[in-house]
Amino acid sequence: MAFSAPDLDVWTKLNQQAAVMQQPDHHLKYLVAAPGRFAEFSRTAVDMLFDFSRQRLNRTVLELLFALAENRQILKKFAAMAAGEFVNVTEHRAALHMATRDFSSDSIFLNGQNILSEMREVNRQIRNFVEQVHRGDITGSTGKRFRYVVVIGIGGSYLGTEFVSTALKAYAAHDISLLYLSNVDIHNFGSIVRDIDPEATLWLIISKSYTTAETMSNEALAREFMREKGLNPSGHIVTVTSKGSPGDDPANPVLRSFHMFDCIGGRYSVSSAVGGVPLSLYLGYDLFERFLKGAEQMDRHALDTPAQDNIPLTSALVSVWNNNFLKYPAQAIIPYASPLSRLAPHVQQLNMESNGKRVTAEGDFLDEPCGAIIFGEPGTNAQHSFFQLAHQGRPFPIEFIGVLQPQYSQYHTTSKGVSNHQELWANLLSQPMALAVGKDADDPARYFPGNRPSSTLILKDLSPESVGKLLSFYEAKTVFEAFIWGINPFDQFGVELGKVLAEGIRKEMAARNQDKAHAFDAVDPISRHYLNALFEDKTV
Amino acid sequence: MAFSAPDLDVWTKLNQQAAVMQQPDHHLKYLVAAPGRFAEFSRTAVDMLFDFSRQRLNRTVLELLFALAENRQILKKFAAMAAGEFVNVTEHRAALHMATRDFSSDSIFLNGQNILSEMREVNRQIRNFVEQVHRGDITGSTGKRFRYVVVIGIGGSYLGTEFVSTALKAYAAHDISLLYLSNVDIHNFGSIVRDIDPEATLWLIISKSYTTAETMSNEALAREFMREKGLNPSGHIVTVTSKGSPGDDPANPVLRSFHMFDCIGGRYSVSSAVGGVPLSLYLGYDLFERFLKGAEQMDRHALDTPAQDNIPLTSALVSVWNNNFLKYPAQAIIPYASPLSRLAPHVQQLNMESNGKRVTAEGDFLDEPCGAIIFGEPGTNAQHSFFQLAHQGRPFPIEFIGVLQPQYSQYHTTSKGVSNHQELWANLLSQPMALAVGKDADDPARYFPGNRPSSTLILKDLSPESVGKLLSFYEAKTVFEAFIWGINPFDQFGVELGKVLAEGIRKEMAARNQDKAHAFDAVDPISRHYLNALFEDKTV
Repeated sequence: MAFSAPDLDVWTKLNQQAAVMQQPDHHLKYLVAAPGRFAEFSRTAVDMLFDFSRQRLNRTVLELLFALAENRQILKKFAAMAAGEFVNVTEHRAALHMATRDFSSDSIFLNGQNILSEMREVNRQIRNFVEQVHRGDITGSTGKRFRYVVVIGIGGSYLGTEFVSTALKAYAAHDISLLYLSNVDIHNFGSIVRDIDPEATLWLIISKSYTTAETMSNEALAREFMREKGLNPSGHIVTVTSKGSPGDDPANPVLRSFHMFDCIGGRYSVSSAVGGVPLSLYLGYDLFERFLKGAEQMDRHALDTPAQDNIPLTSALVSVWNNNFLKYPAQAIIPYASPLSRLAPHVQQLNMESNGKRVTAEGDFLDEPCGAIIFGEPGTNAQHSFFQLAHQGRPFPIEFIGVLQPQYSQYHTTSKGVSNHQELWANLLSQPMALAVGKDADDPARYFPGNRPSSTLILKDLSPESVGKLLSFYEAKTVFEAFIWGINPFDQFGVELGKVLAEGIRKEMAARNQDKAHAFDAVDPISRHYLNALFEDKTV
Repeated sequence: MAFSAPDLDVWTKLNQQAAVMQQPDHHLKYLVAAPGRFAEFSRTAVDMLFDFSRQRLNRTVLELLFALAENRQILKKFAAMAAGEFVNVTEHRAALHMATRDFSSDSIFLNGQNILSEMREVNRQIRNFVEQVHRGDITGSTGKRFRYVVVIGIGGSYLGTEFVSTALKAYAAHDISLLYLSNVDIHNFGSIVRDIDPEATLWLIISKSYTTAETMSNEALAREFMREKGLNPSGHIVTVTSKGSPGDDPANPVLRSFHMFDCIGGRYSVSSAVGGVPLSLYLGYDLFERFLKGAEQMDRHALDTPAQDNIPLTSALVSVWNNNFLKYPAQAIIPYASPLSRLAPHVQQLNMESNGKRVTAEGDFLDEPCGAIIFGEPGTNAQHSFFQLAHQGRPFPIEFIGVLQPQYSQYHTTSKGVSNHQELWANLLSQPMALAVGKDADDPARYFPGNRPSSTLILKDLSPESVGKLLSFYEAKTVFEAFIWGINPFDQFGVELGKVLAEGIRKEMAARNQDKAHAFDAVDPISRHYLNALFEDKTV
């Protein structure tokens, strides 16, 4: 890594420890059997347990990791981020996602403006608007109550909200269905308009710049669809966008427009108006606020707790250990809770877009890749899917997540002497241990090598507060990892090249739409083959 | 690998070529610019294009890979599998998933029985039953038409059907909603029963052994739920299970029972009654049969086509090249078609459970891991999620999938001069090229290394036939990979240890449910902590 000398010293020692950890006598089956293992390698904070006792590390490693955190001053950087410093150095911006749920401060000044009071004003507007929708004071253009909210947005304007709305579905009580039109794919649009009543549909268009290609294409389709149905689009469209963007232009009247801010990146935006509008429509503003308060609790913990007891920070150190020293290229997130089924896709974006980088914030190339491949499905489903590979194939670390008190506790029926929730927990407890300990066998096909690391995260329940804590946990973890690596987790230049090339292809297509004789001579021969296939609608 | 001498020779040569391929002058930007690149490294079969021109290989590599396929006699093995040979050697079973869609043969004998005629008899029963349900001749116990089908099944009894039903949602025309109750998680059950009308609900329970813990727990919950609603469960339950299993016992009467066979593993079972019953209820039997006929076309191609023109086989060789020689640990599947959103989870199971192995079929340990981590989300969504890492972080091969003719072609609205479908294709064409070619830049943060490999698969449309072909493509690819590695893709001993440990934990829980004084002294200290937390319902 592009580190200074004292860091490099710790880095070298960690590499030495990684070599020690590869010795047979450091197999996880021995580590987990040590007395006091759980107590030493687990932490509880804000009603959440983070247990890393089944990670392949010992006290020496942990102390070195904390030394690394100390040397890299990551808590100080985190505080600077919270205070509004321009930590997004390449784009000269602050990263103030935590401000959206800061109920304890009065002001954070950014370019001379109190950004906190601006954010609170947006939330007041959201509450006001949503209450009018729920009361039926604001309706569709023909007077029908809104019963469908279609969120048009992609990436960060979608995945976080989808994670939270899926997690809190049990709380939805306003007879409003929330649908996501993210992909420019016509199938996404076609399958949504099958299911809605156009007169009772609110289209919520989310784009900071209001120029995102996919979102604008879908907005155009939605407007056309409403006109076809004899509806006035301006009575059915709400926007969440930057002040003064084309989506916030009085020349294009819409039902309501809510502001988002440059200091909050898409993948960190679910606690801003980006999540606030759809989640409040779906759940009610009060539940959205409970979600914010949960996130704030974890934010406070991450900000104020020394490294040794700081759970997102410790979790970030474990990731760095697995990634850079034990050399695992991927990590799975397996929640034993179906409502968390969209957590992995959210964290996949949050973490891989933030930390899938090859340069430091100062612009130096890194010596080794940082950022892991993140994937996951809920347990026990995953056990019946890809856990064969987890147990006997290529190893990868896993983050197990459990919930103590389920949302639907009224279903008690037992099978084999245990309730479904207990059966779920029997599996949640068994898998990390089976992965860690393994099993000898005479038959090689039945031999389990073990030594496969995992953490376990336990939430008290799936209340809005707990989901807020979980969101904040992964945001803080992602940022802490980045600060250890010295990278900027808030830019994403890696998505630019594809956009530039798509612009060129789009122009070629538009030219052909205008002129049937337009040939694709300017395009590379491989892409040309595809363009001809598409326009001649022939078998490829 | 545990190979014999002639194979080892080819293996060594491939390793030498991998070293050549790491040279800067073999960067993909040079390879893709060569004249004739597309023609040489793409194949078309059964209306499907497989383009591997942007994989990091050249003619020498490809010839060696075909030599490996020839030496390993994988086409011969594949034919033996199709003929009913016991290729699942560890479990002494045939692997006859292709027989379920074999319309061209008259008989395949297995243990003296004509298994083809047995399978056809099951399909006749399915058609007959489904037609009666659709006509309203078979109804719920109170006379209501069935409008909800809840599939209770996990892993292979669920993921394949979910993939196909999602892909073909546009064809659903029988006013039946298909819901999946896979997880033992009470949230999964609770969220489903919110949405159904119990009198109009058919519960379809799918388990070969009818002993799968999750499925049995959910069956018990469903029965209890029906009794609470005053319904007779036996009038609402249909089973798909082995002949003579507890789900096929006249002592436990159900509405109907359909048979599945030992010669078809769960992850290969969507074309059997496992998929046949739910898909026929959802889409109609005729559409299910069209799906089977598409799969049969690809089966024939895979069976009868020499290696050089065989697309699933060539695709398997490319996987092996990426996995064992270029050392990529993961692979993404990115369909530019929202209806294929559940393809990646299906292939994740199919491929990782089949090939996440550490021993050959003969029981020898492999020298190096086989089987990759498979993950994916639809494009363009993925571009706005994890493609930052794909372009600038840790590289991994990608399989892009496109569809020439979309299902909802009635939506033509253009934006920036192109339709949504064209916009989607502009991205589908740009991403593989951007990944391959990269881009130089003075600013390191805006530098794209390129040299990131991908394949592109193009389907003519998303008809039932095309979805069948895609299913068969990935099944054949998975099996061909396994035959090259010499492993058995049909067993899954790696899931056993977790089950054994869960059995122990479940007994402890049941004992505590019986006796509040039962302490968890027999359990390891880490698990004991969790059991105490769960039973004392305390903060962890």
